[in-house]
Amino acid sequence: MSAWVQTPVIPGATIGILGSGQLGRMLALAAARLGLKAHIYAPDPGPGFDVAARHTLGAYEDEAALAAFAESVAVVTYEFENVPAQSAAVLAARRAVLPPPPALAATQDRLVEKEFLRGLGIPTAPFLPVDDAGALARAVAQLGRPSILKTRCFGYDGKGQAMVREGADLAAVYRSIGGHPAILEGVVPFAREVSVIAARGLDGSFAAWDVCENEHENHILSLTRAPARIRPETAAAAVAMTQKIMDALAYVGVIAVEMFVVEETEPGVDKEILVVNEIAPRVHNSGHWTIDAAVTSQFEQHVRAICGWPLGSTRRYGEVEMRNLIGEEANRWRDILGDSGAALHLYGKHEARPGRKMGHVTRIVGR
Amino acid sequence: MSAWVQTPVIPGATIGILGSGQLGRMLALAAARLGLKAHIYAPDPGPGFDVAARHTLGAYEDEAALAAFAESVAVVTYEFENVPAQSAAVLAARRAVLPPPPALAATQDRLVEKEFLRGLGIPTAPFLPVDDAGALARAVAQLGRPSILKTRCFGYDGKGQAMVREGADLAAVYRSIGGHPAILEGVVPFAREVSVIAARGLDGSFAAWDVCENEHENHILSLTRAPARIRPETAAAAVAMTQKIMDALAYVGVIAVEMFVVEETEPGVDKEILVVNEIAPRVHNSGHWTIDAAVTSQFEQHVRAICGWPLGSTRRYGEVEMRNLIGEEANRWRDILGDSGAALHLYGKHEARPGRKMGHVTRIVGR
Repeated sequence: MSAWVQTPVIPGATIGILGSGQLGRMLALAAARLGLKAHIYAPDPGPGFDVAARHTLGAYEDEAALAAFAESVAVVTYEFENVPAQSAAVLAARRAVLPPPPALAATQDRLVEKEFLRGLGIPTAPFLPVDDAGALARAVAQLGRPSILKTRCFGYDGKGQAMVREGADLAAVYRSIGGHPAILEGVVPFAREVSVIAARGLDGSFAAWDVCENEHENHILSLTRAPARIRPETAAAAVAMTQKIMDALAYVGVIAVEMFVVEETEPGVDKEILVVNEIAPRVHNSGHWTIDAAVTSQFEQHVRAICGWPLGSTRRYGEVEMRNLIGEEANRWRDILGDSGAALHLYGKHEARPGRKMGHVTRIVGR
Repeated sequence: MSAWVQTPVIPGATIGILGSGQLGRMLALAAARLGLKAHIYAPDPGPGFDVAARHTLGAYEDEAALAAFAESVAVVTYEFENVPAQSAAVLAARRAVLPPPPALAATQDRLVEKEFLRGLGIPTAPFLPVDDAGALARAVAQLGRPSILKTRCFGYDGKGQAMVREGADLAAVYRSIGGHPAILEGVVPFAREVSVIAARGLDGSFAAWDVCENEHENHILSLTRAPARIRPETAAAAVAMTQKIMDALAYVGVIAVEMFVVEETEPGVDKEILVVNEIAPRVHNSGHWTIDAAVTSQFEQHVRAICGWPLGSTRRYGEVEMRNLIGEEANRWRDILGDSGAALHLYGKHEARPGRKMGHVTRIVGR
């Protein structure tokens, strides 16, 4: 971190972003608003390139290109958690990489992530490591069916996952996820999925937006509502868990913590229990509503944090609904523009492939 | 306009922008949000280049470069009204130039502009053309002192203007504005300066934001408040005048019409009279508050209009104040970031020269 302390970031500086997708693009747009330039590094051209002052096409394994990239910027951040550890090390030797690399290490591997959470006393689904078909059989015997087999690394939007149902052939299930190192998770009988989007500053300051509630279709986020329809004490507990996670990681930047809300009804007792599902050490799809419906967007907040600047207010305007535009849903853009209550965001992707996030629409109720 | 009709603009298209200053930059950022690319053409590098997918460094007289630029984009717009007529013609032969070139012709020359307004029955300050020192003497004899001598073309932020006071040497005053063709304007004893920012779509649809009120320091906009502290019927009249101007020009895009409000108090009668001062055929500094405090920003609205898309809602959130950050005022950026009620915008200009617009801050009261 010494390079960081020696070079405070001021307006006019260039921030480095790994990844040229919509998250990198929206980070670059937020940086521009604050008078910063963006330099995006990615192995493939993406919509982020169109709004960045500079871009580098390079593999994440190209250490010379990474080093030159790091030396051209004031601070490095990323739009995705699968930054290889060695790439992060090459960058961190030259410039501050924020969120800090330990946050990558803790969240890239589902087993490491769950053990990290368990170490903090934060509830997760029951889980067991699975390194071969034999281990899967033993784990299923312990956690029961249905349960979910997930690759430890590189899963997203439901990829690298398989349900272990009654009667399923365990060897076939294990092959279906590619035979990679995995974990088996018990199924959590949740009533809702929520996420906490929060930021931690270089000085340890903390700011969370209101907990939001998420609906998925085909494992892809479809709808986010803010605030989540949960009890105030449940929301407070979710935010407190998030802060505990960020403090433990000496985190700087925006984080997303996805949680399940389980409703327990016993005679005379109704309660909501939180179970952490996943941590994303980055800006997150379920925080896109903050662009239109909060004083400070998650993208501006992330930029403020990694620059060592004060965090902004997370105050929300009204009740909010954010819908993703997946694949051909984005073809409705003209109708959405005609709806005066809708704020349309399109990511500038060339091709509307099925399952691809093309944009989103935010609506504020009663604003 | 035939090229236009043949090529409707859809997301993924590139819009062309003449000018690389903060207005071009904020237009490019608004276009990006809607999934459009920006190609900026300018004779000098500017902060717009940092957020545009493509830029061309070229003189406004370089017809080959202009032609290539036009052919690379779906539609051409501009951030300033002093686009040379011949440049506009070169562009318009290839792509739609919007707002349409007649809007440039009507507003580049103060004499033409005032005659255009007079032709519409819209009140202006009294004015007379001044082409030499002798004409100035005759005009001063008619309009009295104090009065204001202004170059017909290329004036902005108070440049190319001189006050004709009691006892002033008229030949010296005329020389002080460079001896260019000019007009002499009578001084309007205004109570307030206001502006109407409005948009007109390709289909003739019209949408205005609430009239706003402006304060200048050293001829540079310092503060804009929305809504203006004027009577509802005065505001309605200001918007109606603006629509009349836009319809007369077959305008497409965002316009700014600056007006003086004169309070007349006669026995038994209090009234507010509007006098149009100036028309800017483009997005305008006094509309910057719409980024943070209206459903649709002036930049997004301009992009929607020139693309032939539906206009968005101009609804305002709360009472708004926008302050420009001129020159070294932008050095206060860290304090402004620490004020949770302030939305900071910095333009990414390299050098904080005196009188240079470096950024702005929007505050919403009671949001």
